[in-house]
Amino acid sequence: MKALVVNSTSKFPVMIPGTHENPVPGPNELLVKIEATALNRADLLQKAGNYPVPDGASPILGLEMAGVVEETGSDTSRFKTGDHIMGLLPGGGYAEYCIIRDDHAMPKPESLSFEEAAAIPEVFLTAFQGLFWIGELFDDETVLIHAGASGVGSAAIQLAGQVSETKIITTAGSESKLDMCRKLGADLAINYKEKSFETEIEKEFGPTAVDVIIDFVGAPYWHQNIQVLAMDGRLVHLGLLGGSEVDNIDLGTILRKRLSIRGSTLRNRSDEYKALLTKEFTERFLESFDDGTLRPVIDSVYEWEEAEQAQQRMKQNKNAGKIVLTGM
Amino acid sequence: MKALVVNSTSKFPVMIPGTHENPVPGPNELLVKIEATALNRADLLQKAGNYPVPDGASPILGLEMAGVVEETGSDTSRFKTGDHIMGLLPGGGYAEYCIIRDDHAMPKPESLSFEEAAAIPEVFLTAFQGLFWIGELFDDETVLIHAGASGVGSAAIQLAGQVSETKIITTAGSESKLDMCRKLGADLAINYKEKSFETEIEKEFGPTAVDVIIDFVGAPYWHQNIQVLAMDGRLVHLGLLGGSEVDNIDLGTILRKRLSIRGSTLRNRSDEYKALLTKEFTERFLESFDDGTLRPVIDSVYEWEEAEQAQQRMKQNKNAGKIVLTGM
Repeated sequence: MKALVVNSTSKFPVMIPGTHENPVPGPNELLVKIEATALNRADLLQKAGNYPVPDGASPILGLEMAGVVEETGSDTSRFKTGDHIMGLLPGGGYAEYCIIRDDHAMPKPESLSFEEAAAIPEVFLTAFQGLFWIGELFDDETVLIHAGASGVGSAAIQLAGQVSETKIITTAGSESKLDMCRKLGADLAINYKEKSFETEIEKEFGPTAVDVIIDFVGAPYWHQNIQVLAMDGRLVHLGLLGGSEVDNIDLGTILRKRLSIRGSTLRNRSDEYKALLTKEFTERFLESFDDGTLRPVIDSVYEWEEAEQAQQRMKQNKNAGKIVLTGM
Repeated sequence: MKALVVNSTSKFPVMIPGTHENPVPGPNELLVKIEATALNRADLLQKAGNYPVPDGASPILGLEMAGVVEETGSDTSRFKTGDHIMGLLPGGGYAEYCIIRDDHAMPKPESLSFEEAAAIPEVFLTAFQGLFWIGELFDDETVLIHAGASGVGSAAIQLAGQVSETKIITTAGSESKLDMCRKLGADLAINYKEKSFETEIEKEFGPTAVDVIIDFVGAPYWHQNIQVLAMDGRLVHLGLLGGSEVDNIDLGTILRKRLSIRGSTLRNRSDEYKALLTKEFTERFLESFDDGTLRPVIDSVYEWEEAEQAQQRMKQNKNAGKIVLTGM
């Protein structure tokens, strides 16, 4: 089958179109003809050799896809040949075919194209996990979502908007990104390049107003994050794009405000965890894609042979929303 | 009624026997003749003027007691006059009588004296909250309880021992305290004055073996605590006796190990929270005091007029277990 392979003989590894042997579905697995896949930052790390591939996962990059069930392994009852599905992959999305556990697959919303559906699994499941499983967001709470124009950020804004009476604050780095965040449902969108988010939040909502923070930035935001958190606030770290080392941490504030600082990732979770996450997300939110309440935010769609250009766009932070590959 | 009052005219405030007007129970409240009360570190802070008294709470010190219901307010159905009870107080324990919400009171275990019962509420409810509500301790997990010979520590060791197949590690500063911890159920008791707890834990259980840490020390233990935590580990801060400021925190480890750092206190929780905590603790563990499975650890019993000497003992860290006052 066709597949993107990493040319690691060069000093800076690049993706090149190539071939790979066809995968074969085992028990409880589906063989899927991939119609579209989407890019993730982990791809860049893995390409550079800095992200160990989980045991048993495909060495091919690509953590999500939408496609058509080509063949079912034994003991699969959830889907049948010809079904349109989407889902998380442990790897293998940058190819013509992939294997997915049937309990990691979700029906593709009928009203969406494969390109749109491929942009759903990683960001929406990550946002769902961060907001609800890790962040325990409740009704009437205030949530701060950093990098609101990113894939996970844009999904988190939308999902938080589905919770009753949530107030949604977000940060982004340009007017067009802030506009996008507002359209997705943000009540307050702050340009972090021009203003201190903690000052803007205090102006609008008062000091210590934030119940849950979804953060991908890490160290540079630590002190301000802690400052704006309310009693019993939860700071959820899903990434550390700005750095990881923090000085002058005051545990006294964590104790007094009864805060909870939580780190999480999705990829290194167990298959059972991902299956349960997929199931709960499907039950709670999948219908909302068909009626347009939720929608994947697509930055751009590239032909699969252009994966390298697509990755450069992500690497340079030029995208607002997901970058999709198609035509495999 | 008789009550211990703070003589704050001196530079170093001291407790002196005095009098205070009798409290009157409101709806859902009980008037209790106190038979015994127990000391808490917060008393020292409050005496020194460094612990603000919650709104509506008695200005008299004392956060727990055991005694006899003297009178019931309106709408109280849980207890009747003459019942032997114990419970958490927002204040007012260092006196002849106190008021307690009826949903904060628990029946005194029949096999225990009032002195023993007075040593239960604060430490066992704090340990219960830390281990189960905040730390989410599960079967088969490994828990590290710092300051195992302290009141909360000794309660936590015992409660953790009630969870199926838990491995219990603890730290303390003398051989006699370590012995006590072992008798209470610790599988590994480490003298923190002689050995690095992280090295000892690694020798016995391997690296990153600890699922839940109950910590009262704070900053000095931060890095070692993070080091010994397992994937999905929870670090619960219930106190910061050793200091609160930490440098060189690596959020990367928190993310990679999917850790959760949680601060908590009991006193500043809502009445509803304390009522629910009391209820759940009563249902799950109260019977275990009557059959001797759980027992409060009493360091010493003082007459109430000797409260100042009793507090000095606590201040100097000489106690192993709770210090009780009686004879009010």
